[in-house]
Amino acid sequence: MTQTDWIAVDWGTSHLRAWLLDAGGTVLDHRSSAKGMGTLERDGFEPALLDLVGDALTDGAITPVMVCGMAGSRQGWAEAPYAAVPCAPPTADAARLVGTNDPRLRVRILPGVKQMHPADVMRGEETQIAGFLSLNPGFEGVICLPGTHCKWAHISAGEIVSFRTFMTGELFALLSKSSVLRHSIAASGWDDAAFAEACEDAMTRPAVFAGGLFGLRAEALVGDLDPVTARARLSGLLIGIEIGAAKPYWLGREVVLIGDDALVAPYRQALQAQGCPVTLTDADRMTLQGLRAAHQSLKDPAQ
Amino acid sequence: MTQTDWIAVDWGTSHLRAWLLDAGGTVLDHRSSAKGMGTLERDGFEPALLDLVGDALTDGAITPVMVCGMAGSRQGWAEAPYAAVPCAPPTADAARLVGTNDPRLRVRILPGVKQMHPADVMRGEETQIAGFLSLNPGFEGVICLPGTHCKWAHISAGEIVSFRTFMTGELFALLSKSSVLRHSIAASGWDDAAFAEACEDAMTRPAVFAGGLFGLRAEALVGDLDPVTARARLSGLLIGIEIGAAKPYWLGREVVLIGDDALVAPYRQALQAQGCPVTLTDADRMTLQGLRAAHQSLKDPAQ
Repeated sequence: MTQTDWIAVDWGTSHLRAWLLDAGGTVLDHRSSAKGMGTLERDGFEPALLDLVGDALTDGAITPVMVCGMAGSRQGWAEAPYAAVPCAPPTADAARLVGTNDPRLRVRILPGVKQMHPADVMRGEETQIAGFLSLNPGFEGVICLPGTHCKWAHISAGEIVSFRTFMTGELFALLSKSSVLRHSIAASGWDDAAFAEACEDAMTRPAVFAGGLFGLRAEALVGDLDPVTARARLSGLLIGIEIGAAKPYWLGREVVLIGDDALVAPYRQALQAQGCPVTLTDADRMTLQGLRAAHQSLKDPAQ
Repeated sequence: MTQTDWIAVDWGTSHLRAWLLDAGGTVLDHRSSAKGMGTLERDGFEPALLDLVGDALTDGAITPVMVCGMAGSRQGWAEAPYAAVPCAPPTADAARLVGTNDPRLRVRILPGVKQMHPADVMRGEETQIAGFLSLNPGFEGVICLPGTHCKWAHISAGEIVSFRTFMTGELFALLSKSSVLRHSIAASGWDDAAFAEACEDAMTRPAVFAGGLFGLRAEALVGDLDPVTARARLSGLLIGIEIGAAKPYWLGREVVLIGDDALVAPYRQALQAQGCPVTLTDADRMTLQGLRAAHQSLKDPAQ
């Protein structure tokens, strides 16, 4: 078996994912576990990492590990203080070197990025942005990263100039699973026309958003609103108010969407309906590419 | 002990409350239990009622019970179909007579009110509106009932002309207790200035609402946002977008607020900041008064 030269790790709140790479940069294996930051105490990170990749380490040798994500937060493994915008996505120079009990590990955690006015933070997305920029040097425009907390970042001259976070994914989950709307919202399924109409309405008239949420429940009770239609309409109301608020980001610019297919599809639909040119990229690939760029920037990864 | 002549019941999703009244209309006792509709199967309602008030019934006699609220929903004790706006709050004529195993009970459930376009429903608030109108005949204006699902009702000529529901209270609970914001929001406390500023901002620029939610978390991380200030600001963002969307209701009209003091206080502050004249009334008193009006309209309560 080819020896693992270094390990790339994406450590979020709810997941831990690792890629094992050889000296030529080829991925030997991709592994994941549910041991996200949210489930771990400070002394649980090294054991969780060893559980996942310990068999790939070589006795007597040092395997560099490059980490991005919430593992670098104050409640994580070790705090990697935020870089402040405007800035390029942090490189390995700014990474936090973490002491480990296992001498075979040399763990570095990449910082997140913060913005003071208006206050905002990201941890993990900056590495996806770094990955995209390493593949598309000279890109000028906007990168949108849909997810639990969707980020919009304005990129110019290789730097994150400003960014804004919307809780759209978390609101969708709370409303569809934990609110009174749960009785009226299907667990899956989609309705393009219902999404498009609700999205456009909420974008242009935010009053539709505030009043429209309970309307989904009411229309199921007094009418015959289909739960799949209700699901698409809820998504439309939430993404519509987000797209409306993010207009200073996308208006007149090219938007790159980074995320899983299911997450980015409604954003693409909404932006294209506004005549906004959209490019789709794969989130996992950008994460790995960003970690790769950080690793390659190290002069001596074993130090 | 004076004999209970009839019983007024407010039966919501999460509570059951009963007033025992004598023949002169004096309240002999007020009791409550946690056996709300949400906790009961259909055959659990009569036992729950007997647990609470059974000792006040007289063997060989019939005690009328007038009920409002979610007990009349499809998932409740017995469905009392909605009246449709425009309509006066339903009276006892429209109440659903519910069969009971205990011959001492004569239970009636008042219907809720529905609106077809835009779809909306209420159950319980129509009885508070009836109570207010019985004390203020000829009232023309708007009644706002803050709560888990805040209702705005346009009242004219004794009828509910139209109404709109906002999930503001439920959104506040979900965001402050179950979202990532829970780390940054105090469980209690208030900041008038922070509320006023966030409310005004969200009302006039709804983009502030969408982007401002995660900002509460970010400002706690990169700044020093006080959790009490964050609590007031979250309330301001949510009530601000509601007040903005409800503008066609309150603009140029007198608004009556029905609700508990803590619930109505921020609405009063927000509406007064807009120059809107506001009158406060007590929710429990209006509920009881509405049930009283319904009971008194019965020709023969024991039938």
